[in-house]
Amino acid sequence: MKKGLFILLFVALLAFSCKKSEPTTSTATESKQTETAVSGDPLPSWNDGTLKKDIIAYVEKVTKEGSPDFIPINSRIATFDNDGTLWAEKPLVQELFAFYRVKKMVEANPALAQKQPFKAVIEKDKSYFEKGGDKALIELVAATHTGMSEDEFEASITEFFKDAKIPGKETALKNIRYQPQLELLNYLRANGFKTFIVTGGTIEVVRGISEDFYGIPKEQVVGTSFKYKYDPVKNVVLREPALDLFNDKDAKPVGIQLHIGQRPVFACGNEGGAGDLAMLKYSQGSKYPSFQMLVNHNDSIREFNYQEKDNLSLSTAAKNKYHVMNMKDDWKKVFAD
Amino acid sequence: MKKGLFILLFVALLAFSCKKSEPTTSTATESKQTETAVSGDPLPSWNDGTLKKDIIAYVEKVTKEGSPDFIPINSRIATFDNDGTLWAEKPLVQELFAFYRVKKMVEANPALAQKQPFKAVIEKDKSYFEKGGDKALIELVAATHTGMSEDEFEASITEFFKDAKIPGKETALKNIRYQPQLELLNYLRANGFKTFIVTGGTIEVVRGISEDFYGIPKEQVVGTSFKYKYDPVKNVVLREPALDLFNDKDAKPVGIQLHIGQRPVFACGNEGGAGDLAMLKYSQGSKYPSFQMLVNHNDSIREFNYQEKDNLSLSTAAKNKYHVMNMKDDWKKVFAD
Repeated sequence: MKKGLFILLFVALLAFSCKKSEPTTSTATESKQTETAVSGDPLPSWNDGTLKKDIIAYVEKVTKEGSPDFIPINSRIATFDNDGTLWAEKPLVQELFAFYRVKKMVEANPALAQKQPFKAVIEKDKSYFEKGGDKALIELVAATHTGMSEDEFEASITEFFKDAKIPGKETALKNIRYQPQLELLNYLRANGFKTFIVTGGTIEVVRGISEDFYGIPKEQVVGTSFKYKYDPVKNVVLREPALDLFNDKDAKPVGIQLHIGQRPVFACGNEGGAGDLAMLKYSQGSKYPSFQMLVNHNDSIREFNYQEKDNLSLSTAAKNKYHVMNMKDDWKKVFAD
Repeated sequence: MKKGLFILLFVALLAFSCKKSEPTTSTATESKQTETAVSGDPLPSWNDGTLKKDIIAYVEKVTKEGSPDFIPINSRIATFDNDGTLWAEKPLVQELFAFYRVKKMVEANPALAQKQPFKAVIEKDKSYFEKGGDKALIELVAATHTGMSEDEFEASITEFFKDAKIPGKETALKNIRYQPQLELLNYLRANGFKTFIVTGGTIEVVRGISEDFYGIPKEQVVGTSFKYKYDPVKNVVLREPALDLFNDKDAKPVGIQLHIGQRPVFACGNEGGAGDLAMLKYSQGSKYPSFQMLVNHNDSIREFNYQEKDNLSLSTAAKNKYHVMNMKDDWKKVFAD
């Protein structure tokens, strides 16, 4: 599992320079369409079509008391992946945060700029990480994400998000959220569902914005975690430079069991890195009627167009009858603004 | 940390034969007192006194908008230990469950009765566990709590609690819950607090009853957990025979950080095994006004009278100004019935 995060970070580092294809914010026309949406429509940024109808039909059938499909309120668990599912995964926020931490640490202690792995980040030296492999990446993660108390780490997250902008734009980072998903979260909650984020991202980084960005409280975020240790003298929980759970792929059902304790009946992930297939399958094993949805990034104009080389997520969705959300066709508007 | 659980189980096994001093159910008089309690009193089973006044004053001050002591609703986190805090720890339910599992497994496969560690449990052979030490106890935990899917384990918990009685009594196990604490949980929730159980017990065992017994959903239970593994073929999460977190003492702040992600502002534990001191101290480190309460088992008539040999919990409470709940004086009624 450790290997996985290193690969993720490695890939992130290889894509080091700022991406040019940032998400376009939605047009004034789209915005107007939303405003003039039929009043009472719980999903105004979703185009009327099969998927929107299916979502509403599912929610109505499982919340109707006396129906054989009824789900008791305590089992209305909805889980959403974050990167590429609730917000765009380009830019990758976790990557921006790691580089922000390096910058801050070097500002506080300029000598670090001459020390690896800081030097390589500052000088955008990809070869250092290519040559150094796991060892160099462990150094980077350890130096930027651990070795401090939870209170200190939380303060650095708050500071990062306060002024964070989408690179190359003057738009707040918050605008990479998908407006239709915000409406879906609200709609589910209005129908008694408890909404959770189940992300491969670092749990505390996502908890830092989950309430403000999505209306999801900290304790309803399941993510990648480092090992913790309580220091009774300082009365703080310390983050240790060792992974506890890399919450991606087959680890997502594990994170769900540990944090939630039951299978989600509604699960939503995205294609791109095949990270959510185990979560969707686990949801489908629920004893209650369940709903699985996969975000397909096929909108090169308003967002991005990217697929997995082997097309695994989409072919699995077809085989297992997961609902596929085609961004180009199913969403009237993409970004919150 | 592993050692801790083994010691716990070891102690439990040494206290093998059914205890004679089961909790007495509350008297009719007490029950009547409760019924005639002043209407509008949120804590009718608590005697009027300093502690009750302090609890109400705290809740009122931190929920008053505009007050300097105001706590935003998302940070109103209340954590309660379970054994000895929300329900009596004699009998120890975790112990009853382990023995129940042994009985069921031997019924299904009588040959097991001749095999250790089952044989020792069936024959009440304390010496086997005394001699076998950690190794024998690992065997027992592995054999009764792991090596199955979460779905199977959950089914066995449901079955156990369905008919479970307090040993030697014909009273449902549910009646070991403390009535005043049920009122306190309700009172806190009515004031926007989110209530969590933070227990040394096995997380799934407590999740099996948390909603029914306490109105606390599964995902708000933090407890001792085993390692999990997802089996993609069977689409189940398996429990592996290895501890992940023994959620007691200094591990409680760790469990809180992992599952909740912020310090509790209200924390309640009990003296008897010094298991809750780190949680209380961690709560006291909150940036908000906080409240710590320690249950003192000093009521030999209605419950039990027991103390730690070194009196560590009570002396720490005095030093750190935690509120001490003296059962004998502070509770009008002890058990729910």
